[in-house]
Amino acid sequence: MPNIRVDCNEVLANRIGINGIKPDWLKKIEPKAKEAIKVLQKNRGKEMTGWFELPHEKEQVKKILASARRKRGKYEDIVVLGIGGSALGTIALRSALLHPYHNMLDRQMRKGQPRLHIMDNIDPVSMEHLFEDVIDIHKTLFVVISKSGATAETMSQFMLAFELVESCLGERNLKKHLVAITDADKGFLRPIAEELGLESYFINDDVGGRFSVLSPVGLLPAALCGMDVRALLTGAAQMDTRCKTASLYKNPAAMYAAIHYLADTNLKAPLSVMMPYASGLKDVADWYCQLWAESLGKARNRKGKVVNVGPTPIKAVGVTDQHSQVQLYTEGPYDKVVTFIGVDKFNLKLPIPQVFKEVEGIGYLGGQNFNKLMEAERRATQIALSDAGRMNLSITLPKIDANSLGQLFFLFEVATAIAGEFYDIDAYNQPGVEAGKIATYALMGRKGYEKEAKKIAGRKAADKKYIL
Amino acid sequence: MPNIRVDCNEVLANRIGINGIKPDWLKKIEPKAKEAIKVLQKNRGKEMTGWFELPHEKEQVKKILASARRKRGKYEDIVVLGIGGSALGTIALRSALLHPYHNMLDRQMRKGQPRLHIMDNIDPVSMEHLFEDVIDIHKTLFVVISKSGATAETMSQFMLAFELVESCLGERNLKKHLVAITDADKGFLRPIAEELGLESYFINDDVGGRFSVLSPVGLLPAALCGMDVRALLTGAAQMDTRCKTASLYKNPAAMYAAIHYLADTNLKAPLSVMMPYASGLKDVADWYCQLWAESLGKARNRKGKVVNVGPTPIKAVGVTDQHSQVQLYTEGPYDKVVTFIGVDKFNLKLPIPQVFKEVEGIGYLGGQNFNKLMEAERRATQIALSDAGRMNLSITLPKIDANSLGQLFFLFEVATAIAGEFYDIDAYNQPGVEAGKIATYALMGRKGYEKEAKKIAGRKAADKKYIL
Repeated sequence: MPNIRVDCNEVLANRIGINGIKPDWLKKIEPKAKEAIKVLQKNRGKEMTGWFELPHEKEQVKKILASARRKRGKYEDIVVLGIGGSALGTIALRSALLHPYHNMLDRQMRKGQPRLHIMDNIDPVSMEHLFEDVIDIHKTLFVVISKSGATAETMSQFMLAFELVESCLGERNLKKHLVAITDADKGFLRPIAEELGLESYFINDDVGGRFSVLSPVGLLPAALCGMDVRALLTGAAQMDTRCKTASLYKNPAAMYAAIHYLADTNLKAPLSVMMPYASGLKDVADWYCQLWAESLGKARNRKGKVVNVGPTPIKAVGVTDQHSQVQLYTEGPYDKVVTFIGVDKFNLKLPIPQVFKEVEGIGYLGGQNFNKLMEAERRATQIALSDAGRMNLSITLPKIDANSLGQLFFLFEVATAIAGEFYDIDAYNQPGVEAGKIATYALMGRKGYEKEAKKIAGRKAADKKYIL
Repeated sequence: MPNIRVDCNEVLANRIGINGIKPDWLKKIEPKAKEAIKVLQKNRGKEMTGWFELPHEKEQVKKILASARRKRGKYEDIVVLGIGGSALGTIALRSALLHPYHNMLDRQMRKGQPRLHIMDNIDPVSMEHLFEDVIDIHKTLFVVISKSGATAETMSQFMLAFELVESCLGERNLKKHLVAITDADKGFLRPIAEELGLESYFINDDVGGRFSVLSPVGLLPAALCGMDVRALLTGAAQMDTRCKTASLYKNPAAMYAAIHYLADTNLKAPLSVMMPYASGLKDVADWYCQLWAESLGKARNRKGKVVNVGPTPIKAVGVTDQHSQVQLYTEGPYDKVVTFIGVDKFNLKLPIPQVFKEVEGIGYLGGQNFNKLMEAERRATQIALSDAGRMNLSITLPKIDANSLGQLFFLFEVATAIAGEFYDIDAYNQPGVEAGKIATYALMGRKGYEKEAKKIAGRKAADKKYIL
């Protein structure tokens, strides 16, 4: 299948001016990039880089496809219970590969595929209404995803779903309505799944949540909704091959990482705006935002030195955010790299009718089409940014399909890993969220966190002068 | 109705450490804040501050309510054609004030209210599928919103809707299916609306798109879907009163603006993260992002000096983004102010069932409720950020209703205006988007833009070395 393309011209100083990256910097960083690629490839699959091998995994994929075949037509609703890395990849896949109004269509229009709900929040109002007003428990399959089985949000949702199925349909029907994706051996969910005899899948120890979209975490919901899981993996494998090359100028992931690293360190431009120009790709930006932020935002480097690094990813959507964020991108501080994602070909063409021909200011639109307008706006915004001396990259997908998505996911995963090498940080941990988890346990009265609860209760009271 | 509260304690250096704002800085900036408030209040309603008077407008509101009454039960779908400021407020209102799955419910479950679609993009696939698979043209009302009537995205959508209604239902039915919101006299849409005899509303000259949510732009769709428009305006008026006071310590908008301005200029923390902890408020963050970015991101100050200022707003959603962005917020650069938005009381309470009591790691959750968990997580994240020395604000709504929303919108609007005074920039223009519009016209072959088209065609070709 055709490759996605990454055009880096418009980040270069020789094209956009002094706020761009000097080609010399790229030359200078090439040895470091080569080293990073070599290290990654040498260690691929080891420690936390198990995600490198996911495009080539066979066993669970086979099991997933068989399960999807068996379940075809049996459920009206798939409800994924998961948060962060357990949700974002699936949300991106839903937007890209299902009908844009999939969940609003009737069964026939959906070609028998179930609706797909992804519960990545614990908002009581949303949850209650989903359970009460939208789904029919008799025709619902819950997929609970938590590696540790300790994620408070997901596990409380699981408790709700469990209780609902058990009380409405009886214990013997639990197996029909619950599937678990969790650690192979450890954690709190695995023994529950075993005891209840649930269908289950494992997330390898060496695959972190934000790198798990190509594991059962993303693949099972995808398969259950009829997405082409094999093509997704083939796309990823295709990108894997491209990203093995040690030449910076041939390796799109290394180039993407190098540009962002240089923008941050040499130009004080740490903001990475991800701006897809296709509604179907809008949630890939959210998935990217987690990957980039959680992997690279770190207090200490590998030597233990306090560095407080981390580029900040930002989601924007074309053309929508031209009318919201582009004013700032064009005229504000020179602190951003904007990545456009476009497509060579949309899956259909929609004409703009030839009406109001005589009306100045809109007549020129008639007889053209929305595809051309979308493309013109992307190109125009790119030109405007370049002319204003703003760094921007253009990634182009041949079209929006599973293969392209697979390529795109893997591109950003490898880029993140390489950026981790540049920053010399551990891209796979998240020590900064521990404090919040502990405080949550304390506030929820979990045993063993009494000291923390006391500490919170004893915090200095807020000064009323500053409560307005 | 009860006021929303803004707690600013956790931005202060005496609470969170050296990366916080010194109370002295606030004292020092108070005279400037007083002056800004005075100037704004003196000029309120003049030039581009017409939005100041929207909470007190009577005439169009009456007309809107009458129209909504007349139209009740007559449409299955309302389709708003608008982008940027013509869409974001209505999207925020829909998420906050309608059922969280409103568009998926059947008519009875919606209590006869129509579904609400907001077309703020021109993606051909989404549009075609909305028109083909979702709406029934016989039961659809299109609300086209463009002040100038020249917005390419909105007007091309209008052309599509116009043609569809005319060809399917005949010219005499246009009036039944199209409503226009545009300038009172000028622009391309006004004469079309007049000629076709469409029901129409005007956006005052002195109300910019991003400040238009309380004009017919937001109010008409809201009223058509049964939202309490009067309560929305009352809430805004309530905040208007609070924001008249010249004391920085009593004026929540001035305090919000001062904190962000000081964070940017004194602490190099220009990133403003808006993080609501309620699914219903998630799209208020997008609305805020436009308001803040487009108003404050400016190349030149009022004296014409090149300044390239502008804080960058970022949307985050609690608790979801604890598993995505909070690692970066806690450990990355000290470049952010995080604003939490919480609610005192959700509209319902959802218990976590008492199951798996014996399972360590999740047993503590049983018998509690999701409301408490949500609140605990917000508080825990706030504590974790403060303990890591990160500036954060907490805005609390009594509950999610039209009155609170009105307060919140107006708070941010006034804060933006005051921040504009601090930065000494024009908060109401958007010169940075002109270049992109012109390039779009050129690429779409609009008459009069031939020179620009030639210039684009003559741009230096991309260097293939940098296309990977």
